[in-house]
Amino acid sequence: MQRYFISKSQLHQDHILIEGEDVKHISRVMRMAVGDRIICCTEDGQSAICELNELSADSIKAIPKEWLDEQKTLPVNVTIVQGLPKGDKLETVIQKGTELGADQFIPFKAERSVVKWDEQKIAKKLQRLNKIAKEAAEQSHRTTIPRIDMPRSLSSLIKTSESYDHKLIAYEEEAKAGEAAKLVQTLHEAKLNDRVMVVFGPEGGLSEYEVATLKEAGFSSCGLGPRILRTETAAMYVLAAISYHFELMG
Amino acid sequence: MQRYFISKSQLHQDHILIEGEDVKHISRVMRMAVGDRIICCTEDGQSAICELNELSADSIKAIPKEWLDEQKTLPVNVTIVQGLPKGDKLETVIQKGTELGADQFIPFKAERSVVKWDEQKIAKKLQRLNKIAKEAAEQSHRTTIPRIDMPRSLSSLIKTSESYDHKLIAYEEEAKAGEAAKLVQTLHEAKLNDRVMVVFGPEGGLSEYEVATLKEAGFSSCGLGPRILRTETAAMYVLAAISYHFELMG
Repeated sequence: MQRYFISKSQLHQDHILIEGEDVKHISRVMRMAVGDRIICCTEDGQSAICELNELSADSIKAIPKEWLDEQKTLPVNVTIVQGLPKGDKLETVIQKGTELGADQFIPFKAERSVVKWDEQKIAKKLQRLNKIAKEAAEQSHRTTIPRIDMPRSLSSLIKTSESYDHKLIAYEEEAKAGEAAKLVQTLHEAKLNDRVMVVFGPEGGLSEYEVATLKEAGFSSCGLGPRILRTETAAMYVLAAISYHFELMG
Repeated sequence: MQRYFISKSQLHQDHILIEGEDVKHISRVMRMAVGDRIICCTEDGQSAICELNELSADSIKAIPKEWLDEQKTLPVNVTIVQGLPKGDKLETVIQKGTELGADQFIPFKAERSVVKWDEQKIAKKLQRLNKIAKEAAEQSHRTTIPRIDMPRSLSSLIKTSESYDHKLIAYEEEAKAGEAAKLVQTLHEAKLNDRVMVVFGPEGGLSEYEVATLKEAGFSSCGLGPRILRTETAAMYVLAAISYHFELMG
């Protein structure tokens, strides 16, 4: 069943009012009619099977028929900190990372990031990234859309990291050195709903200064196996490993 | 150090003769000179640090200085069978799957594959995919390049699967049904160098007929967590999980 994310203002006492692009999607793309069913997901992660009750050109009224008890989020809250990469790689990280269960993404203005975000275009870029996250969340049957932060500096990132329970750096040099224990150890120690932050460098990797500064702030660096992964592949590896550890191995 | 894959014919008694595109890469892209060092990887998975000895416009002579003992391949041999997907997704699967340690890729002419490979273009397509695998193997510091098979039909795939120790289907319906045990169980049972085949459907998924036929032939279906993954993400999930299981958890 197709899913749509709705905001608090769309949730009324006995119905949900669907507006904006979702109206076009339901009417024109899915070609649905009165009586057809969709799943609506609220901002606080609840979801309900809803029946379409009234369709007009700019809004659709849907009646919740059954509230669902779905567990689609990872048992730990994972924030992916991604050193700003080139081209459309950040979009890839957000699309695939959303499918794989990330809770939040923080673009990071790393020393070796070639790309600089033009201040005037940040709003537009974030809008596009949020759209990608929303669509990936719908397609992967999630009940929540991951949050996407403003790009942060190293000091701002470290300040934010203070509220996290576990802080990791995916560091290429550790992979080369054969480090294999830290990710496993962290996942063994993590408890339900713990907050985990993992930092990934841009294409050129994190600088030694960044790694040293993050370590001083309580981050541990971890290897991801003996092969060197591209920056966008590393984030997927960590999320898949976390899902395997908690959701399959139990 | 930059790596280059060489064939048997390039390996001489006291030197390695580098030819073709790698010559351009070494001279023009890397701007290397006599005395600079590279890593050469042979077809049988050995690798050596080599010193450049003579550079000409169409060949480079490199002298092996130290043979390395590298373990870059997954402890089990994984074959990714990918239902032919749309667009450039097969390229993504091969690039990321190579980084993540796959041993072999088999494109699969699935019932719901929208894309058909034109017989006349197969050679050219395979050439392009092999180039992607070679470059990804070099970049990820692998010592072997994964093989890429001709696209296969269901019956041909089943015949090939007879030589495998473990046969899995990544099946969306199992994810929806909450299946979580099969992948973990398979990895627990797998021994060093066992051959594992995992089949992924195209965008529309595998058909019920395909799943039933594969199951009859000894395949088991496995879920990959509660979220529904895109076809190209599913292959990465399985490879990352296998790496996490064997290479990090040990």
